[in-house]
Amino acid sequence: MSVSRAVSLTRDLIRCPSITPKDAGALDVVARVLQTVGFETHRLTFSEPGTPDVDNLFAKIGSGAPHLVFAGHTDVVPTGDVSRWSRDPFAAEVVDGAIIGRGASDMKGAIGAFLAATLAFIERHGPPKGTLSFLITGDEEGPSINGTVKMLDWALARGERFDHAIVGEPTNVSSLGDTIKIGRRGSMNGRIRVSGKQGHVAYPHRADNPVPTIARIVAALSAHDFDFGTTHFDPTNLEVSSIDVGNPAVNVIPGEARAQFNVRFNDAWTLETLRDRIRDVVREAAGEARVDVEFMPSNAVSFITQPGEFTGLVARAVEEVTGMTPELSTSGGTSDARFITRACPVVEFGLTNETIHAVDENASIANIDALAAVYHRILEAYFLRPRS
Amino acid sequence: MSVSRAVSLTRDLIRCPSITPKDAGALDVVARVLQTVGFETHRLTFSEPGTPDVDNLFAKIGSGAPHLVFAGHTDVVPTGDVSRWSRDPFAAEVVDGAIIGRGASDMKGAIGAFLAATLAFIERHGPPKGTLSFLITGDEEGPSINGTVKMLDWALARGERFDHAIVGEPTNVSSLGDTIKIGRRGSMNGRIRVSGKQGHVAYPHRADNPVPTIARIVAALSAHDFDFGTTHFDPTNLEVSSIDVGNPAVNVIPGEARAQFNVRFNDAWTLETLRDRIRDVVREAAGEARVDVEFMPSNAVSFITQPGEFTGLVARAVEEVTGMTPELSTSGGTSDARFITRACPVVEFGLTNETIHAVDENASIANIDALAAVYHRILEAYFLRPRS
Repeated sequence: MSVSRAVSLTRDLIRCPSITPKDAGALDVVARVLQTVGFETHRLTFSEPGTPDVDNLFAKIGSGAPHLVFAGHTDVVPTGDVSRWSRDPFAAEVVDGAIIGRGASDMKGAIGAFLAATLAFIERHGPPKGTLSFLITGDEEGPSINGTVKMLDWALARGERFDHAIVGEPTNVSSLGDTIKIGRRGSMNGRIRVSGKQGHVAYPHRADNPVPTIARIVAALSAHDFDFGTTHFDPTNLEVSSIDVGNPAVNVIPGEARAQFNVRFNDAWTLETLRDRIRDVVREAAGEARVDVEFMPSNAVSFITQPGEFTGLVARAVEEVTGMTPELSTSGGTSDARFITRACPVVEFGLTNETIHAVDENASIANIDALAAVYHRILEAYFLRPRS
Repeated sequence: MSVSRAVSLTRDLIRCPSITPKDAGALDVVARVLQTVGFETHRLTFSEPGTPDVDNLFAKIGSGAPHLVFAGHTDVVPTGDVSRWSRDPFAAEVVDGAIIGRGASDMKGAIGAFLAATLAFIERHGPPKGTLSFLITGDEEGPSINGTVKMLDWALARGERFDHAIVGEPTNVSSLGDTIKIGRRGSMNGRIRVSGKQGHVAYPHRADNPVPTIARIVAALSAHDFDFGTTHFDPTNLEVSSIDVGNPAVNVIPGEARAQFNVRFNDAWTLETLRDRIRDVVREAAGEARVDVEFMPSNAVSFITQPGEFTGLVARAVEEVTGMTPELSTSGGTSDARFITRACPVVEFGLTNETIHAVDENASIANIDALAAVYHRILEAYFLRPRS
């Protein structure tokens, strides 16, 4: 396979300034490459009131089982203050063996590696026996409403059946090969409001200060051990990200206090059991106070792809190329894998995540080439293995 | 004495819309009445960079000891939404035996009563044997910088020696005669800032969330028993009036959290011992976290006029007129008595405080007349008693 093709395609993609929800030509780069080896491509633009329209790409070659999906996104997060970058974030300059640019690691490098591995496989072996598809969205860094979810609905409605998926998110912590993600914790946001009674600080018996109550609630929630982790997951963790009273008058007891929190939870919990536990902790800390707990709608429950044949196939490919035994991890943030898991087992493997979302995001050429080699090994092991 | 004079003067004063720091003719009303019976009057305008200029009045009759001061203020707090008042707040209409208007109880009714009592005394007994003075400021409801403090400095500098002072603040809780104030708790404001490290909620080990720390600190300060009260004082009390993080992003751990508090403290504490105790409580709750505690400058330490001859004289006058035995209290907010206590013993007695600072503030005609009678009894007992 040609290693320089992965790097060259990554640079082409970075040069499209596809700050979410803009596409800026990035999906065309992907579609054109896939068309050269016979993929059928579908550009899908989805809309929803209150959100921007977003372009997506579904591309497919072959038919029938097994059906493997390469999934990912071409949109990127904003650059922040461009003057803090050492290079133009959309020039894709190579400095000291690394491509500098927004999206280099998250995750245009992985898309470049997907494409290079696919071209090399088809050039060597012809179209896969079965189906290989690309599910590429422009709405992963945005609201995640007009992207993967709707593409999956569209594909399933037209009769696609997916067997396995690889998501190219940057899963590795410090070296390429150290981490495969086989699941993700769930995520839920909530708000707490304590109602008291306004008054003058000199007459506290005529008022009811909500501030000590919300302080006790926040302290209790922050100190609560939801669990101590499960076989594949870290412990559930709750972070209160803000408390806000907004009372500028130092001699006035305020009438209300508010807080917001996020929970990252493992497979010991459903949304329902988690909400019940949070309500219990809040109620015990609140005593007699009037407290409302509101939970925001969540589309991020925890999921796990049980270690087995598919995770083993991916791990072996990683080991063969990198020499490292990857950890099967479920830590970190959420990704579109949480949607794909409804359609088929999914694992995630991509570049390292050290510089993602940061100034001077970059990806080493060596890692991009190695990643393309890993994906190529996965294609060979997946489509050329003896059928049982 | 003419009871209607107290009411008539109160109404004249209310009709001057002297919303702090404006005078709107109120001090002229006082000065003109006092001049008719021989007082020398001094209009004093004080300035300070960053604060509005404020008019004040020092008036005096007689010479030498004993020197009694009637002290108070003609400025009033704003009306708030005038449409919520049942009557024009500056029309001083009489409804069901009460004068409705901003300042009726706090404290133009007491100024009217001071004046009526003084006129009646002088008409009956001639000028006092000793000195009677009026120390009336237009800066009690404002910053309290260009008022009583500077008038006292001015008077002491020109050789005035004060023996006792009566402040006409509305001290009574529900019936005229129920409460004399013989001291006030001190007041101190402070701010707390906890510094953490910003990060993503999915990677809490890479961040340091200041929110649980400030919650623990606020809960500890709010639950702390500083003391259980002293002979004349309620327990010291701390109220946290705001916690503010201001983090709109629910998936971001914030870098800093802030809170503000007020302490009302009794004579068990100095500003120094109180600051030390607060720092100790904060430090214990904070653990290893980085916390700054900042104390605002305070000119409100606690003070007490020990019960004795002077408080007894005032209490007897109250009892003779109202038939009630007043409580000698130190509860509630601060007043300019905290400044006057540096010059001489001071007690406070005025109208009831049920409607002060509220919509439809009012004072009953019966109470204003009774208050004038109390002040008149005080003048007689003070200036006509056999000298020891």
